[in-house]
Amino acid sequence: MTNRRPRILVVGYGVVGKRVADALALQEDMDMAGVVDLQPTRLVEVAEERDYPLYAASEQAATEFQTRGIGCRGTLSDALTSCDLVIDTSPKGVAKGNIDLYQSASLPFIVNGGERKDAAGVSFSALANYQEAVGANSVRVVSCNTTALCRILVAMKSLGTLGEIFVVAVRRAADPVKTSRGPINAIIPVLGGLSHHGQDAQEVLPDLRIRSMAVSVSTTLSHVHLLHLQFSKVTSRDEIVAALHRTPRVRLVRGSDGISSTAHVMELAKDLLRPRGDMWEVVVWEDSVYVDSTNAYLSYSVHMESIVVPENVDAARAMFQLHSTGGASVRATDQALGCYQAEADYHFR
Amino acid sequence: MTNRRPRILVVGYGVVGKRVADALALQEDMDMAGVVDLQPTRLVEVAEERDYPLYAASEQAATEFQTRGIGCRGTLSDALTSCDLVIDTSPKGVAKGNIDLYQSASLPFIVNGGERKDAAGVSFSALANYQEAVGANSVRVVSCNTTALCRILVAMKSLGTLGEIFVVAVRRAADPVKTSRGPINAIIPVLGGLSHHGQDAQEVLPDLRIRSMAVSVSTTLSHVHLLHLQFSKVTSRDEIVAALHRTPRVRLVRGSDGISSTAHVMELAKDLLRPRGDMWEVVVWEDSVYVDSTNAYLSYSVHMESIVVPENVDAARAMFQLHSTGGASVRATDQALGCYQAEADYHFR
Repeated sequence: MTNRRPRILVVGYGVVGKRVADALALQEDMDMAGVVDLQPTRLVEVAEERDYPLYAASEQAATEFQTRGIGCRGTLSDALTSCDLVIDTSPKGVAKGNIDLYQSASLPFIVNGGERKDAAGVSFSALANYQEAVGANSVRVVSCNTTALCRILVAMKSLGTLGEIFVVAVRRAADPVKTSRGPINAIIPVLGGLSHHGQDAQEVLPDLRIRSMAVSVSTTLSHVHLLHLQFSKVTSRDEIVAALHRTPRVRLVRGSDGISSTAHVMELAKDLLRPRGDMWEVVVWEDSVYVDSTNAYLSYSVHMESIVVPENVDAARAMFQLHSTGGASVRATDQALGCYQAEADYHFR
Repeated sequence: MTNRRPRILVVGYGVVGKRVADALALQEDMDMAGVVDLQPTRLVEVAEERDYPLYAASEQAATEFQTRGIGCRGTLSDALTSCDLVIDTSPKGVAKGNIDLYQSASLPFIVNGGERKDAAGVSFSALANYQEAVGANSVRVVSCNTTALCRILVAMKSLGTLGEIFVVAVRRAADPVKTSRGPINAIIPVLGGLSHHGQDAQEVLPDLRIRSMAVSVSTTLSHVHLLHLQFSKVTSRDEIVAALHRTPRVRLVRGSDGISSTAHVMELAKDLLRPRGDMWEVVVWEDSVYVDSTNAYLSYSVHMESIVVPENVDAARAMFQLHSTGGASVRATDQALGCYQAEADYHFR
């Protein structure tokens, strides 16, 4: 790794890729080296409105770019010669096929949650295990649901030993523009075993015992999690709320203030004038927090399109050792994005 | 109480009332004494197609019946003189106002789950506490969600001592014809405390410790519950599936057989040629059942419009002491309805 500002290439310009590219472009200590995609259509506006270097994912895609009159600087192979790290945000399963290319080019890389855990050396969530990614050659930023769960559990385990953790993920059916996907009027349970979210979070937080179930429902805005924690000693509602308050990338809202559904949460993100109306934080309903002796219960909303964006930036920073502590990286990322600032160092002491 | 077939009046001809009226009309040991409603429109087809005696809920309603040319035999007061028991299925809160009338007429009555638990002497679920309703003067049939949960927990507690029970209810936003209700694209959590379902089920099963959380989602077909049980000893998946198999009003389906969502469950009800496509049973996904040492997890679907119908019939039978055991009543009700027959006596031994 070098001492100059690392140049980071974003492969895949979809839901996560376009957001990660914008987030990288805002950071002071790294450069966005360009974006790579198969489909020129997605990149038209970027080509016209922004200064992002464009690359075609294949020779065939390059021809299509040319046909449509969209200037691209070459193919993925060309892009790999002018970057120091790749963040691959390709659809599930596609990144796996690209990894050989990155390794042949001796480039460190980040894949995202859709990939299997063995696709990279470290399964990463910034608040939970930043140190494990420091200097690593490959990192997998865990999925949106797992990222949210990890942030909450980092906050909760600061309060004491946790026993059985059980979470139900009520998942949005599809992202807003996936108009061909359903269900439009049904609830679909995950069958054939528990859902992967608990196991995934345990990859990042191996000292915890986390089990999860999930359903998909007819909505496009956000996931919601309903969480049941068992502490080894009696805890209080105030302690839990305070721990959430001091945790970065966790935002507390109240139904009693009118934020009573995922629609209200996403309206809040728009009112905050966030790019694309994104909500990078896990949004916990403060008035869902309920404590009964050693048992605690709470609900939160997960904006599946944007929640992993800051974690991708932190993963890059850790790999290049740009900051010695996770707290400093999280603060730098969130400040550049304009994300709510909590006591970022708290959980890294 | 007399020895002749009891005459049962149904007050409220809405979602539950119309189904209960039809169910009563099918029973061999009781008579459907008539239906009472405020709105003649709802009763037009009944008046034309069926032989149910109709009554108007008030003098004003009687006038409206007359204006629309729908023959009714009188008002609620008249109806009360020619019945032996009232099943009140009025909307939430309305039944409470009628109770004085029933008591003045010395009539035993049943209210439904929308009412507060102190509206009647016994909170009832047939498999759980049939004996408590035997000879009672007033009974509350618990809500659809609680009815489902009670059936499942009766099956599960037959396997051993249960510790912490936690259930998430993913609720349908509205019944199919409630077209003015939302959300059409959001998830709404229950805030300000846990949901009432756990507490309600504990009214019926006071020896258990049941906690619940809930969300409403954009669908009209069914609720889904995701349940986490902690047994005091190691249990097996086979034991759990077997216990569900032998429980009346519980139907096992498999996602691997194509029944992979609430839409598929309701299609099954139609394929069974059920009246209105009703699914009186709790429908458990067999391939959701997962066991890990003393922890068990499972998911099931709850048809909110029809699941309490058989319980209303059983409650009436218990109050009139028409059968000495819950098993016999459950079998009689289910046989008359055409509901799946399990080993109805099992949980009443």
